[in-house]
Parts: sequence; structure tokens; C-alpha cells
Amino acid sequence: MKKIIAVSGSNAGDSNLNKEILQIAEETGYLIAKKGGILVCGGLGGIMEASAKGAKKGGGTTVGLLPWKKESANPYIDIPIATGLGFFRNNIIINCADCVISICGRWGTLNEVAMAMGLGKKTVVIAASRGVSELLSQKEVLKTFKKKPIVAYSAEEAVSLAFLNGVNS
Amino acid sequence: MKKIIAVSGSNAGDSNLNKEILQIAEETGYLIAKKGGILVCGGLGGIMEASAKGAKKGGGTTVGLLPWKKESANPYIDIPIATGLGFFRNNIIINCADCVISICGRWGTLNEVAMAMGLGKKTVVIAASRGVSELLSQKEVLKTFKKKPIVAYSAEEAVSLAFLNGVNS
Amino acid sequence: MKKIIAVSGSNAGDSNLNKEILQIAEETGYLIAKKGGILVCGGLGGIMEASAKGAKKGGGTTVGLLPWKKESANPYIDIPIATGLGFFRNNIIINCADCVISICGRWGTLNEVAMAMGLGKKTVVIAASRGVSELLSQKEVLKTFKKKPIVAYSAEEAVSLAFLNGVNS
Amino acid sequence: MKKIIAVSGSNAGDSNLNKEILQIAEETGYLIAKKGGILVCGGLGGIMEASAKGAKKGGGTTVGLLPWKKESANPYIDIPIATGLGFFRNNIIINCADCVISICGRWGTLNEVAMAMGLGKKTVVIAASRGVSELLSQKEVLKTFKKKPIVAYSAEEAVSLAFLNGVNS
Repeated sequence: MKKIIAVSGSNAGDSNLNKEILQIAEETGYLIAKKGGILVCGGLGGIMEASAKGAKKGGGTTVGLLPWKKESANPYIDIPIATGLGFFRNNIIINCADCVISICGRWGTLNEVAMAMGLGKKTVVIAASRGVSELLSQKEVLKTFKKKPIVAYSAEEAVSLAFLNGVNS
Repeated sequence: MKKIIAVSGSNAGDSNLNKEILQIAEETGYLIAKKGGILVCGGLGGIMEASAKGAKKGGGTTVGLLPWKKESANPYIDIPIATGLGFFRNNIIINCADCVISICGRWGTLNEVAMAMGLGKKTVVIAASRGVSELLSQKEVLKTFKKKPIVAYSAEEAVSLAFLNGVNS
Repeated sequence: MKKIIAVSGSNAGDSNLNKEILQIAEETGYLIAKKGGILVCGGLGGIMEASAKGAKKGGGTTVGLLPWKKESANPYIDIPIATGLGFFRNNIIINCADCVISICGRWGTLNEVAMAMGLGKKTVVIAASRGVSELLSQKEVLKTFKKKPIVAYSAEEAVSLAFLNGVNS
Repeated sequence: MKKIIAVSGSNAGDSNLNKEILQIAEETGYLIAKKGGILVCGGLGGIMEASAKGAKKGGGTTVGLLPWKKESANPYIDIPIATGLGFFRNNIIINCADCVISICGRWGTLNEVAMAMGLGKKTVVIAASRGVSELLSQKEVLKTFKKKPIVAYSAEEAVSLAFLNGVNS
């Protein structure tokens, strides 16, 4: 059975997003596909679009769990699932994944990472990607929590950790 | 953008299921795939498994929106989405579909067809498939409702109607 | 712990609703309150409003699980819970109840009754109330199902059955 | 229409919970009730129980949106709503509230506060209550976010801000 990897991160419009951060997302998607994983995300723009683009370059399959309408899916989504649940669809993105990788992000990403951790899901944050993912890689922040996400410093490391059995957050 | 067709019907264990009914489900899945649609279902046994099997024979893609665990998906599901929502995942099966086809079925199928009708989703019931789908093809039953599902008498007719623009329930 | 009784039925605008049917709903709500139950419903008009009105006359507490906005609650709702889930909030109405009573109704009510039956929830349909509730009291319809709802012929009988331990659908 | 205030915070078992923190929760619940608000929470132990206890002392009404079973409600819950949604019920706690107050907390509370902020809901964190609420009151943490929660330094200040029109996070 193929691994399902959720990529959680900022929608388009986040001022933290730049070429470099989007490149991390694209590489993450590419590597997930190359390792035989299915990429699941929220199906919209920004990190979601960049990671889905990468997964398609890598020959993989992409699923977008959309808040409302199928038509809002970015062009790299193979399977657009219109949940009709709005913001609440975050839950399904997290629940269906074997591992969650977070890249950059604002409140929505924090909602997803916190849910992943609360559900005991394997969770990797990419420290170099700004926003919430950078925040959740800082020691002073993580000392608040008993269970901590795994911190990775590159797309390559994040995806390796995602597929590595026996490593858990 | 590919059409998404939901197949709603009995899980394994329904005494109404026989070789002929399962054949209708398999043919429905096969024809959905041949027409370029993505098959979505609840991912479990019975009608769900038969229709997914047919879609795979037809070279299509199958999505299973599972109540709890990814591992409960039948062997013909390409994309197993573990919703963690139990019975409530019915809502997403219906919401994400461009059209819903119901085959046989018990209370769960009735829940899905009623939701599809309530949401104004195009809905086709296959009259010849027993159970809830047969029930909802009967004039004395349908007179209770102002909006009525489309009644089809074979897999072929059901899938043709599902893909026909301008025909609505 | 107080019993929670869900009343499921048509929103305002259903042509089946008349003074007599609304009276059944009001009496149902009144009797639920008199027996010490908490009334839960979808919080909108029609049967929902009439039953909540009855419950308030009976000195009870009413909860409205609303599709979107708190402000859409009818004036007899004490606790308006804006779920943000649209049609999907039906699931919570049914799940939280110890017993479901259905009165009149269209596709939305059928969705709820089918869910209640699928979840193994005690379910009473009032035969005399038209619509879906009348439909689900007919022998020719119920023979489709192995598990059958309890059929009541008045508000009084429905509420008695709802509170009677050991009687199940 | 009464204001609905959600209290979000740690379940029993969080090592951050001590007499002082629970006292903040109890006072918060008490003041919500005294100001005429309805208290909504997750219905379980820890901060949820302490705030519900306070609301009952203040003569208010308490709603518990429970993950699974009605029977898991703490003894101060008037209206136990068994959602059947597990961790996902967090969404409804946040969505139905006019304002969210967070006290202490771990990943579950962070999930709720992030959702509240993502949905544009008025959100107050009590800085003095440890855990996630303390974390989200720190300038170095909040600089990650454009939209920031309101920081309060006591139960009294938090509840005043919750009821003050025109103040938003």
C-alpha cells in the first residue's frame, strides 16, 4: 500500500512565500512522488500548488482536499475532492496521511500541525521554510510541548524522514 | 477537468447482493472509467468493491473515502482516504461527486441518496438492483418527493445519464 | 443524566406542513420537555420551530444545531450552535441523540432517519405526519429493510416510546 | 441573543495544571455566566471541567461538545452533545463561539486557537496560564503572525475583552 504524505503550508498570498520557499515545496513534492508516495494537500495555491507541481514532475499522484469547490483546485491536482467543509477539511488532510510535512505556513498550517501532533501522527517541519514551520523548529517554542514534531532542514531530509520507518514525532 | 462519479451501495453482507447485482456494479465502474470519470466510493466491500474492480478493469482511477482506517480499503482502491469520520464520511462521498449512482443499498445508501437529493446533486438510481435503489425507483414512493432522482434500468443507462449534460434530478 | 431527544422534520416551506402537523410537532416538543428531556433539532423553521416552541411551553431546554449562522435560529432555541457544516450538521443532530423522532419531512429528514437507523440509534417515525415519516411507516416500504424504525401514531405515543427503556428500532 | 463563549484548554493530565491555573479557568467560567454568556467547551476534564464548574457557580448554562460519548461529560455540563467526531469536534467548539478564550493548553488547544484565528474569530489568550496560552502571548512568537490573538493577563480581563464590542483579534 502506497504511503500517503500530506504537505501542509501557506496558500498563495503569504508574504513569506518567495522563490526559494516555493522551490522547497516543489522539491518536497517531487521527492514524495519519486519515493512512490501519494501527495495529499489542500489543493489550493502557494505551497499546495508548488508541492503538487513537484509531485507531477516526479510522476506521482496528487490529491487536493478542497474547502468548497472542485474548480478551485490548482492545475497540478489529479484528484480534486470538494469536501464542502471549508476550513474543516484540514482535519481530513491530516487524518488520511501517514506523515505530515509542513512548509512555511500561517494559522491554517498551525491548525494542521497541531492536529497532527494531537492525533499522534508523524509530523515533520522544515525549519528553513519560514512562518509556522520555522517557529515550530525553535527550541524555546518546542519546550512548551511534551510531544514534539521532527525538525528537518531541507526537502530531502524531510522526505527521507517521512518514509523512514521507526522514526516518530 | 475529469468528472467524479460516486457509486453508493451496499457493503458486503447485504443479503440482497448476488452475482447479478454485483455484475451491475462492476459494469457501472467499468463504464465510468471508460468514459474518463474518476470513481469515488466508500472504499469497503460489496457494491463498493465490485464497482472499483470494474473501474480498474476499465483503466480508471478509484478513490475510497473510508470511515476509519486506510487498511480497510478493498484491493481495487487506488487512493484510500482515511477520513476518521465513521459513518459521517458519507457526506464527503456525496459532496465531492458530480453525479451519484446508487446500486442496491440499505440505510447507509439511503442516507447518501437523500443527502445527494437534499444538496441538489445529480442522482441516478438503478431500479434493477434491489434494495434502496429499487425502492427509490417506485412511483408510489417517489410521489412523496417534489425533487426526484433519475431512474435508470441498467448500468449502461445509468452511466450515460451520469455523463449527459443538461439532465438533472 | 437527561435524555436528549432529536426531532427531525421539514423546514418551513414544505407544502405538507399544515396546522395539524405543526400541532403534532409542538405537542412532541411539549411532552419531551415535560418528561425531562432536552430537545435537539436543526434550529430552523417548520417542524423544528414548532417542536422547540412546544418544548419551551413545557419548561424544557432546546438546542439548535444550525447549518451556518447562530442568527438563523428560530426564537424558541435556547442554545444555538452554529456548526459551520451546512447540511452535514444533520450528522451531529442524530449522533448526539438518545432517540430520534421524525415528523413529516423531505430529503433532509430522510437523510437523518437513514443515518439514525444506520448508526443503530433508536428511531420513532410518526405515521400521521405526512411526508417521509408517513412513507417510513408503510409496510411495503419497510419490507426493504431488515432493521426498521418504530412506528408511532401520535405525538404522545412517540414520546412515550422514546423514553421507554428496552424498546429499540 | 446570548453570547456564546468557548473556553479552550488542557484536559486533565496536563502537568502544567495546578490549583492556580484551574482557579483561573473556574473564574473565567464564573464571569462568563455572570455576564450572561453561554459557556461552550469540549466537555471533558482539566480546564474544561474547571470552567464549567465556575459557570455553574455563576448560575450559567454549560455546553460540552464531546468527542464521542455523552457519558464522558464532566459533572458541570448541562448540555452534553456527543458529536461522534473525535478530535474533529474541536472545529464545532470554535465555530459556534462568538469569542474563544484559551487557558493553558497543549496541541489540542493550539489546534483550536489556530482555527479560531484562521476563521477570524475573536480570540483571547490568558498569558498567565502556562502552556500554549502563555506561548501565544509572547512577542517573539506572535511576530510570526499578521493577525494576532488578544492577550489578557487575568480571567477578569479576558472575560471583559470577550464581551467588549469593537475589540477584535
